[in-house]
Amino acid sequence: MGTRGRPSVDKLVQSARDGSPRAVARLISLVENADDALREAMAALAPHTGNAWMIGLTGSPGVGKSTTTTMLVSAFRARGLRVAVLAVDPSSPFSGGALLGDRIRMGDHALDPMVYIRSMASRGHLGGLSWATPQALRVLDAAGFDVILVETVGVGQSEIDVAGMADTTVVLLAPGMGDGIQAAKAGILEVGDVFLVNKADRDGADVTVREIRHMISLGDRFEAGDWRPPVVKTISARSEGLEDALEALDKHLAWSQESGGLERRRAARAGREVEAIALAQLRQQMGDLASGASLSALAKQVAQGELDPYAAADVVLSELGTAQH
Amino acid sequence: MGTRGRPSVDKLVQSARDGSPRAVARLISLVENADDALREAMAALAPHTGNAWMIGLTGSPGVGKSTTTTMLVSAFRARGLRVAVLAVDPSSPFSGGALLGDRIRMGDHALDPMVYIRSMASRGHLGGLSWATPQALRVLDAAGFDVILVETVGVGQSEIDVAGMADTTVVLLAPGMGDGIQAAKAGILEVGDVFLVNKADRDGADVTVREIRHMISLGDRFEAGDWRPPVVKTISARSEGLEDALEALDKHLAWSQESGGLERRRAARAGREVEAIALAQLRQQMGDLASGASLSALAKQVAQGELDPYAAADVVLSELGTAQH
Repeated sequence: MGTRGRPSVDKLVQSARDGSPRAVARLISLVENADDALREAMAALAPHTGNAWMIGLTGSPGVGKSTTTTMLVSAFRARGLRVAVLAVDPSSPFSGGALLGDRIRMGDHALDPMVYIRSMASRGHLGGLSWATPQALRVLDAAGFDVILVETVGVGQSEIDVAGMADTTVVLLAPGMGDGIQAAKAGILEVGDVFLVNKADRDGADVTVREIRHMISLGDRFEAGDWRPPVVKTISARSEGLEDALEALDKHLAWSQESGGLERRRAARAGREVEAIALAQLRQQMGDLASGASLSALAKQVAQGELDPYAAADVVLSELGTAQH
Repeated sequence: MGTRGRPSVDKLVQSARDGSPRAVARLISLVENADDALREAMAALAPHTGNAWMIGLTGSPGVGKSTTTTMLVSAFRARGLRVAVLAVDPSSPFSGGALLGDRIRMGDHALDPMVYIRSMASRGHLGGLSWATPQALRVLDAAGFDVILVETVGVGQSEIDVAGMADTTVVLLAPGMGDGIQAAKAGILEVGDVFLVNKADRDGADVTVREIRHMISLGDRFEAGDWRPPVVKTISARSEGLEDALEALDKHLAWSQESGGLERRRAARAGREVEAIALAQLRQQMGDLASGASLSALAKQVAQGELDPYAAADVVLSELGTAQH
């Protein structure tokens, strides 16, 4: 227990809440490295969580995610809010921490102390995505950021998983990329709360808007009181369409709060997080078994056809059961 | 235990061993669907496993995996061996079973009763890759195939995981694709037992061969008795280089058997399989908790900052511990 034992973690949490980007970075590093102090840090952070508005942004490469993120950061800063950006690359095994690159990329906001920008590799050694990303969000939430933009790099299943964790999920598309069909195939339509058709000065923007609207209406049977995802045209590089985009985002937040959808979504997110942590710990315990004699002896029997893998798994589970008590 | 209770599973296993492709297909469907009878089937299959030579094939799209697989199938058939091909798509959530497409693709062997071809989506609902693929291989092994070629579609981490499961892993490259560097980045050099530089009539084949040899020698410190991955040039579409490729494969198998490497690798594979099954069962139990009141009550507390996710995970784990007894 004794989660308040080490003063350094408490101090780190306090510094993060006081606005120190260095403290925030160190806490996120605890997550990335699955540091021993992580558990303690999470306990210290917990009471301060639940305030940030988490906005997920996903879309194919080339649709303008970075420029849209930059545009939204400016808009939220103009409201006087503290903003964090977490760029998640589910396919990369390499640690983000690439602060320099990030800050160059987000040039406009690089020197603003109220904006924190961080990229993160999510394919960690402890179960990846489902495990690390929500905990990094938890750090940013507890650190007092009002808005957290979570940007993913592609449109694979992992990206959809990340985007689906947010309070509000923005799906970015561009005209003339056959994006409607692609999005439908990728299962992205179901997670989008707001659709932005960016680069709307290109040919075919209206076609894409109609296509997406049509597909949304096909995919879902809306009932009274349901949220109907709006489709908004933007040209993020020139901040055109920003007001409409913001209005859509604000409306979704308001609807979520009133309908109880926000509370449900956050509880579901926490549930998945707890599950992922529990699984990671079980995997860890199994790793301990594996390095001991037990699993390797079983594995040898399975390899030689003396035992089937399910029977072997039963033995492992019963040993874990003992270990847990 | 009573694993031999239902006659249908025993009959299915017998039919598969007698060479019925339909029975093999049904057993693999049990794996894909995580059917209730799967556990029973695995128990019935276990005594018949451990005989097949599993050859993994991986490489970027366009290097000629299908033609190379076809070439190798012909060669092993010419030796009078029964051959199975399992094409695994780790990124696809869709079930393979696309037998028609597969059989068209492998036109030469479509009507050969001693060749079984199957594609499989590995991203299953029970933990994906690590779980389903080894069990499908187990089915094919027990069904009496002498050689099983496991082909993956890309070069992501999942593909490397699949290829690394094999007794012998073949990495396919093509000239002029900067493949050496790509392979190194993707971590593919470490899993390759045999490297084939396919489409060797293209410009730059020798450069690619040298590059790969150089990188292999950089990456590893070989000691006496170690396996040094050979790099072989092929033109699979015309079966050129086939003898050299086969010789490299045969030598690797012989070396594996003599050095004890094969036994160790198979034990490691079985260990990962047991671990994956155990984890899948724990996840299942957690899912049962989730649909009950316990996890959702905990999740709500976490979402509201009343509990940190680690403390909640502890509660889940202690409930699982009880449930296991």
